[in-house]
Amino acid sequence: MKLLYPNTLKLDPSAIAGFPTVTLHLYDARAPTIPDELLDAEILVTWANSPANLKFAAQNMPNLRWIQSLAAGPNDVLNAGFDRSRITVTTGSGLHDRTVAEHTLGLLLNAARRFYEMRDYQLQGKWPGHLGGPQPDREKGTFRTLRDANVLVWGFGNIAKCLTPLLTALGARVRGVARRAGVRAGVEVFTEDKLPDLLPETDALVMILPGDPSTRHALNKERLALLPKHAWVVNVGRGTSVDEDALFEALEKGEIGGAALDVFETEPLPEGDKLYKAPNLILSPHAAGGRPQDSEELIVYNLRRFLAGQDLRNII
Amino acid sequence: MKLLYPNTLKLDPSAIAGFPTVTLHLYDARAPTIPDELLDAEILVTWANSPANLKFAAQNMPNLRWIQSLAAGPNDVLNAGFDRSRITVTTGSGLHDRTVAEHTLGLLLNAARRFYEMRDYQLQGKWPGHLGGPQPDREKGTFRTLRDANVLVWGFGNIAKCLTPLLTALGARVRGVARRAGVRAGVEVFTEDKLPDLLPETDALVMILPGDPSTRHALNKERLALLPKHAWVVNVGRGTSVDEDALFEALEKGEIGGAALDVFETEPLPEGDKLYKAPNLILSPHAAGGRPQDSEELIVYNLRRFLAGQDLRNII
Repeated sequence: MKLLYPNTLKLDPSAIAGFPTVTLHLYDARAPTIPDELLDAEILVTWANSPANLKFAAQNMPNLRWIQSLAAGPNDVLNAGFDRSRITVTTGSGLHDRTVAEHTLGLLLNAARRFYEMRDYQLQGKWPGHLGGPQPDREKGTFRTLRDANVLVWGFGNIAKCLTPLLTALGARVRGVARRAGVRAGVEVFTEDKLPDLLPETDALVMILPGDPSTRHALNKERLALLPKHAWVVNVGRGTSVDEDALFEALEKGEIGGAALDVFETEPLPEGDKLYKAPNLILSPHAAGGRPQDSEELIVYNLRRFLAGQDLRNII
Repeated sequence: MKLLYPNTLKLDPSAIAGFPTVTLHLYDARAPTIPDELLDAEILVTWANSPANLKFAAQNMPNLRWIQSLAAGPNDVLNAGFDRSRITVTTGSGLHDRTVAEHTLGLLLNAARRFYEMRDYQLQGKWPGHLGGPQPDREKGTFRTLRDANVLVWGFGNIAKCLTPLLTALGARVRGVARRAGVRAGVEVFTEDKLPDLLPETDALVMILPGDPSTRHALNKERLALLPKHAWVVNVGRGTSVDEDALFEALEKGEIGGAALDVFETEPLPEGDKLYKAPNLILSPHAAGGRPQDSEELIVYNLRRFLAGQDLRNII
């Protein structure tokens, strides 16, 4: 049985080896085709494949039974035309938790410590003196530190669980919003109907929602209006979960403190888009993840279960 | 006995009250004088006082016996002409640990996640696509994440102890350099003579050295040359500890990855200074601290000891 693994990241095949009936084969995930001698593979690991490569695989791999994507949301695989009646697709959910959490923390500190504003001064050759020296300490109506800040994480899954201890180490108070209420990883998680109570108490709203139709424009004009004037919005989930027009308006009018966006309704953000120049907007080019961590562990875990006929992890 | 506390930050007098022989009096630390009725005070708490105010106090407070500055390095008090033969000066060392640690973490993430470079693109209305999407994971010769990064903290005191758990939570390996070797807060700390071994293994060098003559240009051309090409320098101690000319040259020639400076040899950095335009230099206007935390606790601690005739904490 052949397992194909991609050349688009550094995977260590020795960390996948040890299953006697499985042979491991490196393939070029950016090439328009897959070599003849690999077309009878039953297992395909994907990461940053070219659309042509996936389309070719969908049409020319008759024995394929399982695709392990390393992406958290493998839309590329789902849209490539694979025969889902015989092919199981599993995602790389979990492989990006640490990198996305790190990036999110960085964006929050960028906002609170106003590094983006300092940069604007620096580029003009000016000293941003108003941002340094003796400063007011945790004034009401500001977001200048994570200490004692109320951070609300909307979309409380594994990334949020990874982010929470980083925030609490800095002194933040973390609460969550998710489909199911409860206490997870020590954090009180509420359902969306509690947003009218939660948003007005929020200094920083971190959005980690997936990109399905149910989350479209979850953060809309009405909900933005419930945030305090100083509150920041950080979105590292999917761009469609924020109404960008409403967000732009809130930024322009100073109705919120700012926004740090790693994801957008259209990516790349088109040249000339008004968001580039929106006040207090920090733009990050879908850079939070993009580096799967410990992929071999997930592959091995699922490979063992696949061979044993057990349910795989992260099935779509 | 009168204790004067300044109006330049929000101190809560009720958190200092309870010593029957001591009365608490708010004073204007920016005013050129101190009111007549307060001139017989024995204790003066200072924060962001105007030079005129301190000079006036030095000349007109005959009973003054103790000055509690809330600054970590109260050069303003030391240079104001107080009679040090009868007046004890204590610093605010410790009150800035958390804020400086937070800022330092922010600068490290700004560097690793390249927020400053993203900002430059944003201001030009361009999508910094090369910084997003699928990215190489922890390539040798890069500093793109704190995970598995070697962080060397030069000047391993209380700020470093506060910073270390934040870094290790993100997966960094922390080592220290200080006057005395040993293990502190779980971190192996070396003396400066080990720098030739340590610097070549460093991904990010965090400098938290005080600004005395012994630390002048501690990071000089020779030591900069020992850092790997991708290494970043973050300075949140004092500007004099870095040879800025040598740093500028290293940045210009791409001999190091970058530098994030919160402190400078001259502050504010003069207009037209070459550092404004140095490549991969992040400028922060002495903004790491500036917000003493829990000042009342230090004041109370030292006030009790002062009344009991015991040695004070943080004596200069």
